[in-house]
Amino acid sequence: MGTDGETGATADRAVMTLVGRFADRDAWTAAGWCTLERALEIVGTRSAMILLREAFYGGRRFDQLVRRTGLSDAVAATRLKQLVDDGLLEQQPYREPGTRTRYEYVLTDRGRSLFPVLVALVNWGAGLDTGPRGIELVHTECGEPVEAVVRCRAGHEVTLPETGARLARRAGTPRR
Amino acid sequence: MGTDGETGATADRAVMTLVGRFADRDAWTAAGWCTLERALEIVGTRSAMILLREAFYGGRRFDQLVRRTGLSDAVAATRLKQLVDDGLLEQQPYREPGTRTRYEYVLTDRGRSLFPVLVALVNWGAGLDTGPRGIELVHTECGEPVEAVVRCRAGHEVTLPETGARLARRAGTPRR
Repeated sequence: MGTDGETGATADRAVMTLVGRFADRDAWTAAGWCTLERALEIVGTRSAMILLREAFYGGRRFDQLVRRTGLSDAVAATRLKQLVDDGLLEQQPYREPGTRTRYEYVLTDRGRSLFPVLVALVNWGAGLDTGPRGIELVHTECGEPVEAVVRCRAGHEVTLPETGARLARRAGTPRR
Repeated sequence: MGTDGETGATADRAVMTLVGRFADRDAWTAAGWCTLERALEIVGTRSAMILLREAFYGGRRFDQLVRRTGLSDAVAATRLKQLVDDGLLEQQPYREPGTRTRYEYVLTDRGRSLFPVLVALVNWGAGLDTGPRGIELVHTECGEPVEAVVRCRAGHEVTLPETGARLARRAGTPRR
């Protein structure tokens, strides 16, 4: 690869570009500040993700969610409580005639904001070419496959080496 | 929500639309065919994702990856072997003067194709508003923040209720 310095890889066209003080990657430990790790604390388990998958598919009731995920009652109950505590799901009362009030689980805005994560993972899994055909996500209006693409706010599609990683500004700090 | 049937949620404007035979969600178990689960088998652990994060940031060598992830040598070694076996990383020899040949870990095309997953998770974690400021991903050409957006192959941005989930056609089956 023509580079053997500790920081030489920042110029590698196959990875992200490290910008500013963050380029000295060894000066920063991930502990406590990495937003990826914050995300994984909440959705970094198989059981959380497959319960959320069923919520995205419209599953709401405990017995639906258990049946459709194949999780045990105990695991599903623990994880659903955690997802409610973390604000991804909320409980809504419902009542069928002649029965007591029960609660179903509904995605909150925070839960729904995982949509690109879910799409990206589903499509990545589909690309592995293992196992049976699985499901596919399509745009209901036009029928074309749906995918998660990386873009900047100005609308440019962004490749991996065009992506810069830098220490975030504090809220309210001017852009440049 | 005005619906209490088992399948009523498919018309819920806040979740995906289930299409075709897949609409009878209870007729399908996830076991073995869900592409999300296939993805999670490979990258569904914290240790796998944070090692890949460092690979995306340009980390290659075992000691770099251990230091920057905070994983133990044993956990990192096991997980790196798994990521190599699964085809996300590959080992490349390198040699510094006066030392024996060692191997560094480099993202493969399959590993790099996780880019939208990584971006989506990093940004979702950043939106949680907990902890310190973290890092941000920007387009190096224009400086604007980078995000993962959901789009169809025809170029339309696709919202959650406009996303249909259906059983995938086998390879080679005509589109409609």
